[in-house]
Amino acid sequence: MHSVFLSLYLQKKERMESLKQRRTIRKYQQKDISSDLLNDLLETACRASTVGNMQVYSVIVTRDADRKAKLAPAHFNQPMVQTAPVVLTFCIDLRRFSKWCVQRKAEPGYNNFEWFVTGAVDALLAAQTFCVAAEEKGLGICYLGTTTYNPQMIIEALELPELVFPITTVTVGWPAEVPAQVDRLPLEAVVHEEIYHDYTSEDIDRLYAYKESLPENIRFIIENNKETLAQVFTDVRYTKKDSEAMSENLWKVMKEQGF
Amino acid sequence: MHSVFLSLYLQKKERMESLKQRRTIRKYQQKDISSDLLNDLLETACRASTVGNMQVYSVIVTRDADRKAKLAPAHFNQPMVQTAPVVLTFCIDLRRFSKWCVQRKAEPGYNNFEWFVTGAVDALLAAQTFCVAAEEKGLGICYLGTTTYNPQMIIEALELPELVFPITTVTVGWPAEVPAQVDRLPLEAVVHEEIYHDYTSEDIDRLYAYKESLPENIRFIIENNKETLAQVFTDVRYTKKDSEAMSENLWKVMKEQGF
Repeated sequence: MHSVFLSLYLQKKERMESLKQRRTIRKYQQKDISSDLLNDLLETACRASTVGNMQVYSVIVTRDADRKAKLAPAHFNQPMVQTAPVVLTFCIDLRRFSKWCVQRKAEPGYNNFEWFVTGAVDALLAAQTFCVAAEEKGLGICYLGTTTYNPQMIIEALELPELVFPITTVTVGWPAEVPAQVDRLPLEAVVHEEIYHDYTSEDIDRLYAYKESLPENIRFIIENNKETLAQVFTDVRYTKKDSEAMSENLWKVMKEQGF
Repeated sequence: MHSVFLSLYLQKKERMESLKQRRTIRKYQQKDISSDLLNDLLETACRASTVGNMQVYSVIVTRDADRKAKLAPAHFNQPMVQTAPVVLTFCIDLRRFSKWCVQRKAEPGYNNFEWFVTGAVDALLAAQTFCVAAEEKGLGICYLGTTTYNPQMIIEALELPELVFPITTVTVGWPAEVPAQVDRLPLEAVVHEEIYHDYTSEDIDRLYAYKESLPENIRFIIENNKETLAQVFTDVRYTKKDSEAMSENLWKVMKEQGF
């Protein structure tokens, strides 16, 4: 009996460890993911919580090289889109549910902002459950934050109709790299007890000190000819001008898709 | 050696199974969650992918009974808010990052819709990672979709300042029930190969047939004096009128919070 308990203990311990040890994988082996495995992972993803058990999301599976080539520019040609065996686009989808309503003499009222957000919650919980399950099977994943930058290009490439909107993209494949794990802010930066405790300037200094001390981050400052790491974000990676243009575009495309 | 491989095999198999067998827990034992365990789970949550490693989210931990009582009305007094030992409110948070920028001579441009959505993605991936880890430890969770219905009440109860916005809430505790697992649509309803395949009326009939055949769903129709299950959703649970009012409110509060 002892060994059974030890095994259960190690097993639970290891599960938590695998979530804690995870890292994003951007380089993949030239090796396919079987349909059986992919469907099994997608089945698992569908077990994630969903508002009112309505499942207001859809997942588009891209395996075809031509289709990947069409998707790539929407993601600023990040190589993962074309090198990963599978690209998954997780979409807000109020279309299927609304169609069901109309067909059942019910008037749907889901073409609005509240349901855009609700669909995003649904889609993202499914996406993350997929990723956890995939990583447990030894697969590597990478989220593409670019999904909301040029949604109209993705809508076109994947032929998404009204009331369907791409919210995130995951590239998946068998890892061909073991990158170093990136830093995170200390837990106290992110967690608040009972109420939001606003940050003093001393808090900010303390919470960002480790990130600012990392050699790779110091290198980014030098390479970009900036004074601070924050300037690398605001002046190079995510500028105010780009963010404002993307906000307007996102809102516009949301409307065009019927929300 | 055999038993080691068998144990590894069973372990992996069981991991996938635990994700597949999961169910939402709404009744909890009167037993606390230790700070050590909670922090360990939150550390794990912070390993979820985050755009540009910016971690534009915060988590508010509610344990205090008075604070829970303040939160409860925002969630239509669903009992879990007051009976769960821990309530977690996951928030979009562009405040911390923007403060860091200002303090480092960088001009942040994150008070807009694009970053509201990006923050939502970040917060939801962390939330779902928390939930998976919590369930592996034997805890039960329930998501509260009500978070975006009355965000201003949550903002007030948790004292959320500008550029912080509640996007989802999770109640957590040791299970005091083993509910039946709820249905899901067949996988083909949710997954599309290469492009979005729009649903014919035959597809809709086929994909919703199982859900419509379930005794509990037939009971909902009768109890609500409706003709179809879809009408229970559109006329009772999630009406067009409520959804439109909530959309306007959500947009308004988003603006008030500085986005």
